[in-house]
Amino acid sequence: MKVGIVGAGNVATHLVKGLVKAGMEVSVINSRTIASAQSLAQHAPAAAITDSLNFKLSPPADIYLLAVPDRTLPQLLQEVNFPEGVIVAHTSGTQPLELLMSSLPGVETGVFYPLQTFSKEKDVDWKPIPICIETSSQHAELTLVNLGRLLSNQVVLMNGETRRKLHVAAVFACNFTNHLWGVAQDLLQKAELPVNLLEPLVQETVQKAFQFPPFSVQTGPAKRGDSITIDAHVQLLQSEPQYLQLYQVLTKSIQTVAESEPFLGKQA
Amino acid sequence: MKVGIVGAGNVATHLVKGLVKAGMEVSVINSRTIASAQSLAQHAPAAAITDSLNFKLSPPADIYLLAVPDRTLPQLLQEVNFPEGVIVAHTSGTQPLELLMSSLPGVETGVFYPLQTFSKEKDVDWKPIPICIETSSQHAELTLVNLGRLLSNQVVLMNGETRRKLHVAAVFACNFTNHLWGVAQDLLQKAELPVNLLEPLVQETVQKAFQFPPFSVQTGPAKRGDSITIDAHVQLLQSEPQYLQLYQVLTKSIQTVAESEPFLGKQA
Repeated sequence: MKVGIVGAGNVATHLVKGLVKAGMEVSVINSRTIASAQSLAQHAPAAAITDSLNFKLSPPADIYLLAVPDRTLPQLLQEVNFPEGVIVAHTSGTQPLELLMSSLPGVETGVFYPLQTFSKEKDVDWKPIPICIETSSQHAELTLVNLGRLLSNQVVLMNGETRRKLHVAAVFACNFTNHLWGVAQDLLQKAELPVNLLEPLVQETVQKAFQFPPFSVQTGPAKRGDSITIDAHVQLLQSEPQYLQLYQVLTKSIQTVAESEPFLGKQA
Repeated sequence: MKVGIVGAGNVATHLVKGLVKAGMEVSVINSRTIASAQSLAQHAPAAAITDSLNFKLSPPADIYLLAVPDRTLPQLLQEVNFPEGVIVAHTSGTQPLELLMSSLPGVETGVFYPLQTFSKEKDVDWKPIPICIETSSQHAELTLVNLGRLLSNQVVLMNGETRRKLHVAAVFACNFTNHLWGVAQDLLQKAELPVNLLEPLVQETVQKAFQFPPFSVQTGPAKRGDSITIDAHVQLLQSEPQYLQLYQVLTKSIQTVAESEPFLGKQA
């Protein structure tokens, strides 16, 4: 079974690396920028590269994975042309399957959404990454589930509504927390402190978050209702209005949860 | 050298456990609630328990650590009475050393601030936890540094201004991220999804945050300027106005950083 990859960004890169490592043949890599496709093809020696969206002209694949930004997907679907008898899946957490179904009549379609944050500079272990599958046919389901299992131990069937809720939860759990660590690091650097000083604290916070419900082990001045400390922090952040706004909105949100779930008890 | 502990909350609990494990004698445990002091004294067989703040009446200690909420510290300092020749340190990230110096004339004072989140239900490894020390005398410095080294491999001298900046950074890195994981878990539960589905994503996010500057590996729709996905998320969160506000403020903050640091490049 041969796979075609449309896109050459972070998701496409890790898909290609993961599939090749799992012994799959990536037969074609497509990017609007030939140089990006060429660069990615370093990881897939057998792949032809192309910037044409007419896949009838390139070496065939059985499954095409669309690993492109959500905003470019509708335009791509207008231009693309697939051979008959293939399965086409997008990798988006939010785009509906129906978008593919309506744009690609006569093609079996699906969603192949890996729940992970991908950066080109860091390899990932595909095995624990949940891959969420939704399809327009049983044959596509079987095929995409089998493809997913080559990469991951956690292949999950999930409808679009649930997948979109998972995706927004993932933004809170990953994108937003990463941003807050960036803010913390920026504050440390401005105080001329080594950035790794916070590592034991972050590791402990992560460990707790998977042992106990996070709301139940919430700590800190907001949870304690410690207005003296909060006022001192607000004072310290006067010169960083952007961070001050984050501080205030997050403090308020912690307090709202604490008030609505008083049974969770007090933490320091 | 004997240590007295004032307080019986999370910080006091882990101090007592850590000190006893390191072979120190905790000679007295004080709490306004005798039952709390009794409960904590289970971990320190040699400790006397008291609810009196006149420590001239209880078994002596060489060092007293004040592990009480910031808001109760000023009142406690008005009432407390220490024997002569002792060292008294608070454990706060924000309270100035000068508060102890002015309230306790003739006593050697210090700060003994462990940079960690403590919950009673979870043991911690003290070894990697930074302990930030500030003192009013060289003798107190030597004594508190030695005490700190019994617990931790990372004892750091730090003035009050720097400690307060570290503390606010810690709130971003720990309290706020934990809250966001709570939000993510709540969203998963409402979607009837297993809460451990996000664990590989969170673990990867943490790993990246300590390998690369977090702002440089920021991913997600806000960083990509993906307004289609952002609009879909805003739509999904209409029924959760509190989470929607967090979403919007954090999204804006990520975009502000991305605009001011365009050289950091694009991530998926």
